[in-house]
Amino acid sequence: MQESMILAWIGVGAGIVALLFALATMASVLKESMGTPKMKEISEAIQEGAMAFLNRQYKTLIPFALIIFVLLLFYQFSFAVSFLVGAVCSAIAGYIGMNSTTKANARTTEAARSSGLSKALTISFRAGAVMGLSVAGLGLLGVSSLFLIFKSATVINSFAFGASAIAFFARVGGGIYTKAADVGADLVGKVEAGIPEDDPRNPATIADNVGDNVGDTAGMGADLFESYAATTIAGMILGNSLFGIKGALFPLAVGAIGIIASIVGTFFVRTSENGNPQTALNIGLWSTNLMTAVGVYFLSAWTFPGLLGQGITLAIIVGLIVNVAVGILTEYYTANNKKPVMAIAEASKTGAATNIIQGLAVGLESVFAPMLVFALAIWIAFWAASWAGPQFAIFGIAMAAMGMLSTSGFVVAMDSFGPVADNAGGIAEMAGLEKEVRIITDKLDAVGNTTAAIAKGFAIGSAALTALALFQAYIDEVTRSVALQDAGVVTKITEHGKEIWTLVVNLNDPMVIIGLFIGGAVPFLVAALTMKAVGEAAFGMVNEVRRQFREIPGIMEGTGKPDYARCVSIATGAAISKMIAPGILAVGVPLVVGFGLGAKSLAGFLSGMTVTGVLLALFLANAGGAWDNAKKWIEAGNLGGKKIDGEPNPIHQAAVIGDTVGDPCKDTSGPAMNPLIKVAGTIALIIGPMLFK
Amino acid sequence: MQESMILAWIGVGAGIVALLFALATMASVLKESMGTPKMKEISEAIQEGAMAFLNRQYKTLIPFALIIFVLLLFYQFSFAVSFLVGAVCSAIAGYIGMNSTTKANARTTEAARSSGLSKALTISFRAGAVMGLSVAGLGLLGVSSLFLIFKSATVINSFAFGASAIAFFARVGGGIYTKAADVGADLVGKVEAGIPEDDPRNPATIADNVGDNVGDTAGMGADLFESYAATTIAGMILGNSLFGIKGALFPLAVGAIGIIASIVGTFFVRTSENGNPQTALNIGLWSTNLMTAVGVYFLSAWTFPGLLGQGITLAIIVGLIVNVAVGILTEYYTANNKKPVMAIAEASKTGAATNIIQGLAVGLESVFAPMLVFALAIWIAFWAASWAGPQFAIFGIAMAAMGMLSTSGFVVAMDSFGPVADNAGGIAEMAGLEKEVRIITDKLDAVGNTTAAIAKGFAIGSAALTALALFQAYIDEVTRSVALQDAGVVTKITEHGKEIWTLVVNLNDPMVIIGLFIGGAVPFLVAALTMKAVGEAAFGMVNEVRRQFREIPGIMEGTGKPDYARCVSIATGAAISKMIAPGILAVGVPLVVGFGLGAKSLAGFLSGMTVTGVLLALFLANAGGAWDNAKKWIEAGNLGGKKIDGEPNPIHQAAVIGDTVGDPCKDTSGPAMNPLIKVAGTIALIIGPMLFK
Repeated sequence: MQESMILAWIGVGAGIVALLFALATMASVLKESMGTPKMKEISEAIQEGAMAFLNRQYKTLIPFALIIFVLLLFYQFSFAVSFLVGAVCSAIAGYIGMNSTTKANARTTEAARSSGLSKALTISFRAGAVMGLSVAGLGLLGVSSLFLIFKSATVINSFAFGASAIAFFARVGGGIYTKAADVGADLVGKVEAGIPEDDPRNPATIADNVGDNVGDTAGMGADLFESYAATTIAGMILGNSLFGIKGALFPLAVGAIGIIASIVGTFFVRTSENGNPQTALNIGLWSTNLMTAVGVYFLSAWTFPGLLGQGITLAIIVGLIVNVAVGILTEYYTANNKKPVMAIAEASKTGAATNIIQGLAVGLESVFAPMLVFALAIWIAFWAASWAGPQFAIFGIAMAAMGMLSTSGFVVAMDSFGPVADNAGGIAEMAGLEKEVRIITDKLDAVGNTTAAIAKGFAIGSAALTALALFQAYIDEVTRSVALQDAGVVTKITEHGKEIWTLVVNLNDPMVIIGLFIGGAVPFLVAALTMKAVGEAAFGMVNEVRRQFREIPGIMEGTGKPDYARCVSIATGAAISKMIAPGILAVGVPLVVGFGLGAKSLAGFLSGMTVTGVLLALFLANAGGAWDNAKKWIEAGNLGGKKIDGEPNPIHQAAVIGDTVGDPCKDTSGPAMNPLIKVAGTIALIIGPMLFK
Repeated sequence: MQESMILAWIGVGAGIVALLFALATMASVLKESMGTPKMKEISEAIQEGAMAFLNRQYKTLIPFALIIFVLLLFYQFSFAVSFLVGAVCSAIAGYIGMNSTTKANARTTEAARSSGLSKALTISFRAGAVMGLSVAGLGLLGVSSLFLIFKSATVINSFAFGASAIAFFARVGGGIYTKAADVGADLVGKVEAGIPEDDPRNPATIADNVGDNVGDTAGMGADLFESYAATTIAGMILGNSLFGIKGALFPLAVGAIGIIASIVGTFFVRTSENGNPQTALNIGLWSTNLMTAVGVYFLSAWTFPGLLGQGITLAIIVGLIVNVAVGILTEYYTANNKKPVMAIAEASKTGAATNIIQGLAVGLESVFAPMLVFALAIWIAFWAASWAGPQFAIFGIAMAAMGMLSTSGFVVAMDSFGPVADNAGGIAEMAGLEKEVRIITDKLDAVGNTTAAIAKGFAIGSAALTALALFQAYIDEVTRSVALQDAGVVTKITEHGKEIWTLVVNLNDPMVIIGLFIGGAVPFLVAALTMKAVGEAAFGMVNEVRRQFREIPGIMEGTGKPDYARCVSIATGAAISKMIAPGILAVGVPLVVGFGLGAKSLAGFLSGMTVTGVLLALFLANAGGAWDNAKKWIEAGNLGGKKIDGEPNPIHQAAVIGDTVGDPCKDTSGPAMNPLIKVAGTIALIIGPMLFK
């Protein structure tokens, strides 16, 4: 037992290494110059706005978290503590990441100005790496330490629950913020007033730049922090059931390997002045994947000799491959040199309606291939894990999920780099820098859009695998409850020739079907609520920007200063207030179904929610991404470009409508699906053993 | 045994009565005058177009049906015959219904002109009743006779499969036709040329009127014919397992009661000159429901004395209530005096994008309440049926479905009345009749839109319950297969204290999850394919109408005659060719999953497909309906109406874009979901016992 505990200490060690590396990287970024006073001023305004949002968001969540904390205290002290630690760690990761990306934006602009592409990439990617390694490091450190303290994977599932609760709000709140600000800035600034993107005369421009950070960095970071924690714990619970302490700690070691690989991977991200930053990032990602696979091979062989270790290695590699496959599919459906996006652009010729219909069709179609990838991955993972015996099969999917998430450090780094590059361009524009600077930042920004698409696929894919792993951990937890065996909820079945206790979640059972139906419907409702929230928040923003243009004298001439802070404050207020209802729904419905309808209904509920949640996430994200890029493709000069003979090109106008429709789809409602299905899974794991019917 | 067989003869008798009643009703309609030669000419053109479509559709399906027939011949003669009878009966119902509605349109116009509202309602509703009672009568007659011949519910499931295959093509083909014609007529005629709806100068106007019939009458009729057959057979299979021959025949008797109630119900549909036709239809529907409930009470008490009969009665009544409840919910989300539609209209103020976002949100939200209704209905039906013993529970849901569908005769009558009223208005316009006639037909048409919404809810709700009943019949079939017991696919479990054989479809089984994922994704793919098909078909139509306006001299002045037939032919060709791919997918994927992945995956597949199929059906139908009515509400003069100071009102223009987006959603892709999930269920029932893994 003592020997096995080494693995937990390795987890702690790797977590600390990741955090130290993040700290050192942060310090290296901060050493750089922020450029002109004007650049510094803008950057600080963005940072202030972002921090104000985070502060207000977390402040709003404190009472909510405290209520759950107290409720859990009545249940068990260790659960309550784990919950709080999970919530706090998620918040800390958010602060660190946001601090790093918002401090790096002007420095990236300055690097582009004074040095060139290579250094600009280094700074912006390093800022992303701070976020990525904080997420992975805090996740692994938190889980490992709590395990060393409480010695139980079940207890520290509460850590994942804490992370989930925060993640849902961060995703939804951030999603509403970013789109409200974006729509406000675009609709009034670009369309009505006719000023370019990121023009300093636009009152919503700071809010818009803040939005990129709170949506992509903080939201995505919290989302993947949650996946990371939940998957690790689900793997630990299942591993513990099958192999005892050795199995419980194995996922921590996989996480440690992924972190080390991610750190090493960051050093591969280098480019020459005329190089392609995308290639640099791809090399980094591939080497991270490869190092993880090799490391896992040796780890598995050492921990589980023979066929078992080989099977588990394959399952983990499947997870790494899912990551790449979903990324490629996401790119196919949303990249602007591919058929789907071109078809949307073509459809814009006959107006906005046909643009929208085509976009909906692309989004609906885009779910099929990824779902087949998931199905295939599930099958291979189960099959490989069962080489040494059928009872080990259920460990496969958890390990595939763990494999996929082990590289989060690098993937989050790639994703968080995007908003830095985007902001860097914004600062170049607002500070009135020479055109060459903007060319470099635009190059980085374009890469950022691709990495954002890859990260979106990663977030959805990992959410799907995490939800499945949580589902199986739930069945495992419930099955082992003697009280539920006595109550007849858990029954004996014959499997592989011997009698075992299990929670039979038979689809022929009406209670399971009921759960499936309700669970399937919830993602639709949450998507509806978040979509409406964006509309309402954007409406407030539009009115405020219009008011400033009307009331502040000299604003269009650049002599009157817009009230940026008020726009930031309005977006913040709207996002915070509108994240509450979906949040209560996300946490409340699983409780109602579990306690009201029982353990089997809850299992059906989780399955239904996972399926439709993943489907809607893919549909909304890909439709939105495709609409966005169809517009960009036209703006690049195709089909007449933005203007024909000085007159607005109606084809472009149709594409702009599609892009606007896609905004809340891809950046608010779609991303909300990931934490939605995971939060239900972590809640189920906690209440499972209490469901006496 | 001989005594019980009486019930089968009652089924045959009621089926024949229904058909005779339909015949007599048809004769009474045909006695009426068709009005002026011009009216007659237009009506005949519509009828010709509709028949041409049906002929070509069925001709295309003959090879397809023959291949399946031959494949089934290799399996078992009785299956092959039943399949063919099912397909042919569905086709006959389509012919009768289409013949009746297209022959009644001019007669309704003439009744409105020479007599008034009361007679116009009588004729148009009678035409609908011909369709309704043909569907129910042929369904019951076919199932009852085949049972008398083959004495096995399992064998005649092939009848439902035949009906399903036809239904899917009828729904998809009809859906593509109706929208291609509609968009072609609207986009070029109304928008570009600026002529009113149903103007005889519009080359697509006949095709547009044909479309209403092939979509709403033929498509909906085939859809409900399929539900009717499949539910009856699923109920017979489960009833046979539980109660022997008595149970097998009980559903036929329920069907007989529903048919008699529907016939009597039609006599309640009467209105005075100043009355509200909607009230007349509602009274008819309610009395049909009431008579069915009372009849079923006595039937159940006679067949299943004691608690069992009472429980089954309640389950059937639950089905009748689901019908009403889903209708009310559909109306809430799509009626233009309710909040959701008003919100979409309001959102049009800020343009097409916000109109679309709001519509998507309404559609997404609208699925939740109906899913809760289904969940509650499932729960009550199971619970009630289990009063006399837990083993009877699974009969509940089949009986709820049977209760809902027993009144199809009346519901289809209500639905088919819509296209007649719509066509009657079109003929009044095209024949240049006085304005008063159009006022009467518009009144009927408005009612037709509401009944269409109710019928849509009915079709979706019944598809959901039918799919569940088929699912349970599938489990039952597979469970009873001795070969599958030997192969270990079907295993023994302990339920209610005793050991029984069953197919355990455990959601914790990877093969089940894989099936669930694939099944969940298929409806999205089919929705995408059908949506794109409409776009492409409409594109061809738009080009043809533009060509005619350009090339036919004097067309706008009314001196040159448009080539109506060519538009009809183009819509027909496009619809037929584009229904093939989704059709192959609908039939092929269940086969691949079943034979490739096994019985449990197929069960997961059916569940996943049912959930997302029903969700998408509700989402697409309700979003489309809401967009449509938001536009109509504005056109009624709200928010500025169609024009402000002679200039097009941008708010209305935004709403028109939403309406156009909604068209393929509500009339093509949404309705395709119903037969999609049912066809998979009937296929599963056939191949179930062959799945040795």
